[in-house]
Amino acid sequence: MIKIAVDAMGGDNAPYEIVKGAVEAVNERKDITVCLTGQEDVIKRELDKHTYNKEQIEIVNASEVIETGEPPVNAIRKKKDSSIVVGMNMVKKGEADGFVSAGSSGAVLVGGQVLVGRIKGVERPPLAPLIPTEKGVSLLIDCGANVDARPSHLVQFAQMGSIYMEHVVGIRNPRVAIVNIGAEEEKGNTLVKETFPLLKACPGINFIGSIEAREIPHGGADVIVCEAFVGNVILKLYEGVGATMLSMVKKGLMTSLRSKIGALLIKPALKETMKSFDASQYGGAPLLGLKGLVVKTHGNSTATEVKNSIIQCISFKEQAINEKISECLAVKENINHQAE
Amino acid sequence: MIKIAVDAMGGDNAPYEIVKGAVEAVNERKDITVCLTGQEDVIKRELDKHTYNKEQIEIVNASEVIETGEPPVNAIRKKKDSSIVVGMNMVKKGEADGFVSAGSSGAVLVGGQVLVGRIKGVERPPLAPLIPTEKGVSLLIDCGANVDARPSHLVQFAQMGSIYMEHVVGIRNPRVAIVNIGAEEEKGNTLVKETFPLLKACPGINFIGSIEAREIPHGGADVIVCEAFVGNVILKLYEGVGATMLSMVKKGLMTSLRSKIGALLIKPALKETMKSFDASQYGGAPLLGLKGLVVKTHGNSTATEVKNSIIQCISFKEQAINEKISECLAVKENINHQAE
Repeated sequence: MIKIAVDAMGGDNAPYEIVKGAVEAVNERKDITVCLTGQEDVIKRELDKHTYNKEQIEIVNASEVIETGEPPVNAIRKKKDSSIVVGMNMVKKGEADGFVSAGSSGAVLVGGQVLVGRIKGVERPPLAPLIPTEKGVSLLIDCGANVDARPSHLVQFAQMGSIYMEHVVGIRNPRVAIVNIGAEEEKGNTLVKETFPLLKACPGINFIGSIEAREIPHGGADVIVCEAFVGNVILKLYEGVGATMLSMVKKGLMTSLRSKIGALLIKPALKETMKSFDASQYGGAPLLGLKGLVVKTHGNSTATEVKNSIIQCISFKEQAINEKISECLAVKENINHQAE
Repeated sequence: MIKIAVDAMGGDNAPYEIVKGAVEAVNERKDITVCLTGQEDVIKRELDKHTYNKEQIEIVNASEVIETGEPPVNAIRKKKDSSIVVGMNMVKKGEADGFVSAGSSGAVLVGGQVLVGRIKGVERPPLAPLIPTEKGVSLLIDCGANVDARPSHLVQFAQMGSIYMEHVVGIRNPRVAIVNIGAEEEKGNTLVKETFPLLKACPGINFIGSIEAREIPHGGADVIVCEAFVGNVILKLYEGVGATMLSMVKKGLMTSLRSKIGALLIKPALKETMKSFDASQYGGAPLLGLKGLVVKTHGNSTATEVKNSIIQCISFKEQAINEKISECLAVKENINHQAE
């Protein structure tokens, strides 16, 4: 029986949408248990509104809530009875296989490293959201807190990202590329130039070379490797350009009677297209390389996204991703040792 | 009389659109001269198709052409009789006030530094394209070849960018922001953390703090300061997300009869909106900090963009931007000397 802990108090729509998502997950999968962490009475009241198998949902009381604005390190250290700390500790102790939170990004990143802990051999756990492309989705790795990364970190991101895309998302032999300012090997900043030959020589990944930012939305690679600062810029610009274009298109359509009538006719189709290109629709961003999966879902997640994030954790466990990451890094370590 | 050199051979639409753009520029401004550099007979044949004041356009013969794929340093060194090298040398010798090229970006960047040369005090000349936003345009500085920049470079970018936006684009007291992964001062990588207090202390600029990538398309600042790797990612992702969304919207509109009819009605309005959000529509990207303005226009520039780039050079000269940059950096140098 796979058990996933879920932060019932985090995010803009908590607890309502979070609890609803948990109920939808257990109604879809009879072989799992969800542990909702948070204020027991509040969660209970929400749960009473739904029909589900009572044995599949537990409440684990946590009296405190970490707010979005709080300094993460402090919050994790001091609010020991918060829904995030309680959930992460369950993963740490092996009482849960994964943890999903729509709460404070900072607290989830810090908590993942400090409480859940890294798999042996992992230098830095990357945050790796799935981003929409013309062809489906790509994994953008890293968008987390690892600024000023070293080449060896980026190589591990490529390895972990490949395992994730192959076994959780189901893309065979995923194409790995490094974000660069030109297609040629000699282009780039110091970090990229140093990382490029390491990726080329790395066994077990399908490295296709550099990717220019222009090609990312076209689906030019499945695993997009970059350091966190650049990843963060890519992720947020994706959102920003999308939102701005939508708002400008809407405004543009109100300029003439002809376009106003047209706008009414295209509304459903346009909505559908825009939705498929909204990064927040693809469930959660996994924080990889930890002893147990931690998934950060968007702050404004609805029940569907929470459910998808729970299902994501299940695939992760079923596919034994952590074991695969451990093996992969161990192979690499052996090669390094032999080379020394 | 202001004289602008124009590379008649560079870009996808050369020489036709370039020559046409030069003719449009002189027909609009009776007080300028344009020198077209390139193969004399080819240019002459194009010019013969147009009506214009013969005294306002000169041809300066240059027998060679630098192709887009050529390694820039080599090309600049070896092709001494190319349209780019000849044009840049005119600026260097003071025979022209500015130079416009739609040719090889690499060659323009290298040529600008090697041939035209930097203004005294400028550490690195940044390439600063105007990018479209919801509110108008912002200057993205730097998108050039200065990877692995130092904090002092970024401070100069902020100063030069402010002068450009105020005096060429006409934005009073332009808001300067540094690209960051969060709004707080303590966020960011080493470069940003070191640059932030320097920008805060820098006299003569209107520094408003950090800008997250999400806010760039909304027009959150007028001068967007970043190092070239990040700037390149922003510029190209802008293009990529825009192009992908447009193609997905088009595809989406073909899914039902209703939306197909709607699509016909909105076509003109949609085209207009998309055009206003196309980064390539805003003429050229100036390479700042050189002894004379060098403007790189998009490779697929049409006559209108070439004309706009020429006009850009004229404002630059009329507003004595280089003198303003020199003064501004000299003031800063004095402050530094006093502090020592």
